[in-house]
Amino acid sequence: MSEILSLSDIRKAAARIQPYLHRTPVMTSQAIDKLSGARCFFKCENFQKVGAFKARGALNAVLSLPDESLKNGVATHSSGNHAAALAMAAQIAKVPAYIVMPGNAPVVKKNAVESYGANITYCEANLQARENGLADIVAKTGAEFIPPFDDDRIICGQATVAMELIEDVKNLDLVIAPVGGGGLLSGTALSTHYLSPNSKVIAAEPEGANDTFNSFSAGKLIPVEDPCTIADGLLTSLSERTFAIIKDYVEQIVTVSDDTIVSATRLIMERMKIVVEPSAAVALAAILEKQLEVSKLRIGIILSGGNIDFDSFYSGKNGV
Amino acid sequence: MSEILSLSDIRKAAARIQPYLHRTPVMTSQAIDKLSGARCFFKCENFQKVGAFKARGALNAVLSLPDESLKNGVATHSSGNHAAALAMAAQIAKVPAYIVMPGNAPVVKKNAVESYGANITYCEANLQARENGLADIVAKTGAEFIPPFDDDRIICGQATVAMELIEDVKNLDLVIAPVGGGGLLSGTALSTHYLSPNSKVIAAEPEGANDTFNSFSAGKLIPVEDPCTIADGLLTSLSERTFAIIKDYVEQIVTVSDDTIVSATRLIMERMKIVVEPSAAVALAAILEKQLEVSKLRIGIILSGGNIDFDSFYSGKNGV
Repeated sequence: MSEILSLSDIRKAAARIQPYLHRTPVMTSQAIDKLSGARCFFKCENFQKVGAFKARGALNAVLSLPDESLKNGVATHSSGNHAAALAMAAQIAKVPAYIVMPGNAPVVKKNAVESYGANITYCEANLQARENGLADIVAKTGAEFIPPFDDDRIICGQATVAMELIEDVKNLDLVIAPVGGGGLLSGTALSTHYLSPNSKVIAAEPEGANDTFNSFSAGKLIPVEDPCTIADGLLTSLSERTFAIIKDYVEQIVTVSDDTIVSATRLIMERMKIVVEPSAAVALAAILEKQLEVSKLRIGIILSGGNIDFDSFYSGKNGV
Repeated sequence: MSEILSLSDIRKAAARIQPYLHRTPVMTSQAIDKLSGARCFFKCENFQKVGAFKARGALNAVLSLPDESLKNGVATHSSGNHAAALAMAAQIAKVPAYIVMPGNAPVVKKNAVESYGANITYCEANLQARENGLADIVAKTGAEFIPPFDDDRIICGQATVAMELIEDVKNLDLVIAPVGGGGLLSGTALSTHYLSPNSKVIAAEPEGANDTFNSFSAGKLIPVEDPCTIADGLLTSLSERTFAIIKDYVEQIVTVSDDTIVSATRLIMERMKIVVEPSAAVALAAILEKQLEVSKLRIGIILSGGNIDFDSFYSGKNGV
């Protein structure tokens, strides 16, 4: 385990990635404030490059690599936003990206990765096949593996989301972030600890993938088996690295039902007129479920991404 | 017919409504620029109060009324965004609003009107029943009728959309607006004429409601019978008042198919991560159909609103 990441590490990440990425806006909604009784500030990473905060961590990791490690390109296995993020980062660094994706990944995700010029290898839809595919690619090409969250460079990149939020909105009482593998949450917790120490960090997690809640309660890492939730970006369990930060710097884990996640997704799209994916709506879902005392509080809410498959969301295939 | 509205009329409207409404952002999209070969600037009226530019005209009309006319409230018949806009405007002016709506109007629209405290009278879903219902209400209450587009105060309010766009983006070659009854288009044409005379104004119209195209070609008003399009905000035909402005100040009318409107709606939501209704995507559809020479041009595109019924759009009930 590395030492705790410093504010300087996060500032360096911000300087490294800033020329290539969007400083995303913070939006508010009178309708949602009225409904919640709180003052909500939404950090809109759905407007980030590749449609998700994942662009930050992947780009920071790639730009942190020494030329010697970078020259053979970068590789990962992912069916989601990290794949597109790494493909984009490699394009910026002008090196090849090798992405191992399950053959059943949504066409829209495959197209996104291809649009950044990455080399895709398809494999079966299980972790073993993905890891084997990745090992083959790395052995063959000498590419550097960039993991989706279990990596200090990734955590520092994701920490820049809350850093910007805190720069733009003063005196936040709470900052709420969704949690899957914990890259965004641990980065959020660190930035908030350093830059707004009076703000409490709350994690929002789907009931169907509640390893963070269980691990936090037990004080030790308890990965979830067979996770199942509409929030497809949050199926992953924490790593020791992200859990180490989360257990010290996060105040509380709130779990929410898929029904509430769906309601929150619809509420954001219908009232704020912005597109979010279900994983991004989990933080608002935590407020809607009224598990938190939020009356009159100033709350930063991280909207992590906007890559929703509208057809399956609204056709009811995902429980809507 | 009134004299042509002056720049001073439009500036007065802007000053009247500005304290109560949003100055909506102008957004860009690298993906859409790449696809179109142009530089597109999207004026985001989907983020306006009530989710559409209609808030501007309705509020300008209400705030223009002398106290004597205003004291008994305001009334209209509408199943769409004008109903919510007038209800909101009346709430700001602290007078009653009486809205005649067809009983089959979408629940979401009824709820929006109710949320502003308006009195709703339901009627059968035809123009005669709507007009009769309105006449009854006006006779009974003494309320002032505020029409949706055939009104100088409405046109001046809608003209503030292009005024803001032109203030924010210099040297536009084209400004493209959708056209239904012509309130937005005629206002856009006037503001562009006064404030950016080198920019050409293009109207985008659904093939299934092409009265503007036919009227423009014939040089006289030809209303459309039985209009049919997914762009449900653009079913109405021009009035003599709006046509008189459009024939003099609009360069060209481009008609687009519903298929292209659907593609443009999806493109905006998937790539820009913002929610628009099909009527708002008609201007981009005109570019996608490649009927205009747009290569390397700077184009202002008015996204008129964001009140989409996701369920019917994505369930295929509307031809998707």
